[in-house]
Amino acid sequence: MLDTNVRSSGLVERYREAAPALAVSNVVIDSLLQHRSVRAYTQQALPPGTLEALVAAAQSAATSSNLQTWSVVAVQDPARRERLAVLAGNQRHVAEAPLFLAWIADLSRAERRGEQAGQPMEALPYLEAFMLAVIDAALAAQNATAAAESLGLGTVYIGGMRNHPEHVAAELALPPGAMVVFGLCVGYADPGQPAAMVKPRLPQSAVLFHEQYDVSAEPGIIAGYDETLRAFQQEQSMKPQGWSELITKRLGSAKALSGRDHLREAVIKLGFSLK
Amino acid sequence: MLDTNVRSSGLVERYREAAPALAVSNVVIDSLLQHRSVRAYTQQALPPGTLEALVAAAQSAATSSNLQTWSVVAVQDPARRERLAVLAGNQRHVAEAPLFLAWIADLSRAERRGEQAGQPMEALPYLEAFMLAVIDAALAAQNATAAAESLGLGTVYIGGMRNHPEHVAAELALPPGAMVVFGLCVGYADPGQPAAMVKPRLPQSAVLFHEQYDVSAEPGIIAGYDETLRAFQQEQSMKPQGWSELITKRLGSAKALSGRDHLREAVIKLGFSLK
Repeated sequence: MLDTNVRSSGLVERYREAAPALAVSNVVIDSLLQHRSVRAYTQQALPPGTLEALVAAAQSAATSSNLQTWSVVAVQDPARRERLAVLAGNQRHVAEAPLFLAWIADLSRAERRGEQAGQPMEALPYLEAFMLAVIDAALAAQNATAAAESLGLGTVYIGGMRNHPEHVAAELALPPGAMVVFGLCVGYADPGQPAAMVKPRLPQSAVLFHEQYDVSAEPGIIAGYDETLRAFQQEQSMKPQGWSELITKRLGSAKALSGRDHLREAVIKLGFSLK
Repeated sequence: MLDTNVRSSGLVERYREAAPALAVSNVVIDSLLQHRSVRAYTQQALPPGTLEALVAAAQSAATSSNLQTWSVVAVQDPARRERLAVLAGNQRHVAEAPLFLAWIADLSRAERRGEQAGQPMEALPYLEAFMLAVIDAALAAQNATAAAESLGLGTVYIGGMRNHPEHVAAELALPPGAMVVFGLCVGYADPGQPAAMVKPRLPQSAVLFHEQYDVSAEPGIIAGYDETLRAFQQEQSMKPQGWSELITKRLGSAKALSGRDHLREAVIKLGFSLK
């Protein structure tokens, strides 16, 4: 058990005026609270052993029944990172960060075990099996992210890997039953670019409920958060956009999904059944 | 950036003879590597502020486009924990741990924003929106887990929340478009029970690929891991079962899904469309 008398400076940045009066923190929590997405990287290589440390952290996350239905492809080849950057919707940081981790919901390993044992794997075609794999991959990736940030590295998740999942799968030579659910850029933040800032989130009262879900206070909480977010964006010289506007813009049209309105067909073509 | 000269004792436990020679570690990575699932708890209450610290860590995880499509219900009422324990397939630790966190894939908040703005939310019925929410919830939960363990608390994920998702949703009064993807028990490990041990995982070479996926070495790697797992189980006085056997047992039949072969119908009844 670590010293719990460390006051986290990330807490006020994370919630601003809505920051809870935290009674407990420590060096681990402080590191988690400091998360920000980094989208500008130097070319500096990672220290030897870094990748193995991130994967050890990832494999230490819980996995349903120890099934370990995830894998990760580490991409360091510049040409391949360039192609993945294009597939992600021209996200330059995918090409620039020295390490790109492609996190895979992977039922193919189980399928191969079944084939070797001569055992039909009846559970694999169900939505549940797909969810197992997606959740396993996400828990693993978040541990790797926490580990990377604790080492002074910057990261950013790349959901754009789901824009063209079949092209991504072909690029990484994935077998059927394996799909990249998201990517993760890892590298050193470019000091020549404006530093990425801790982004304020919804107040805890908007996402944390006690005993039962309760939306009675929601409208006022979100109106306040809209203001908080606009103030943050103005400080960053970004165009102010409240969270309410963001939500309706991002989820208001199928077109805003950047091709991911075809995700279901792609997932099925990649060998999952979702039944 | 934290001191990187801490040698993690969790690494050898995690991989045994297949442990990589890690060049980098620190107190955060060491804490992550020490994860083990705890299924026997004392009744000891958590220190004030613990829940808020866990949620602050959770909200500091990345969330796609800042959409924050997750929520969490903290259940402390013993009668409700008892009912959830039954719904999870009689998992006693759900009733015993002082805090149960129900992690929710939550598109309902976005739906309500759309209603208030008079904006039809066309993207919400897609599989992509459901995945966004599941991934958001998983990243958040894993940060909370890392925070809890750093505070000396034990945790265990409860995938059994997906056995009867509609009953769970009713118990927590979830609105349409919200679903518990898994639970998390949080409490102090019972010192009167045998200590939970770090479980060996697949060697890194089975899950980590470079540039492209490659199964050429897989059969030998898994045969070795089968032996590692059996040795671990014998030390724990558990019935030895290799990973290959576990996989074919757990995923070989729809019946082994404990009702989750109906997950798709349940998800749709809860207001998601997966189109």
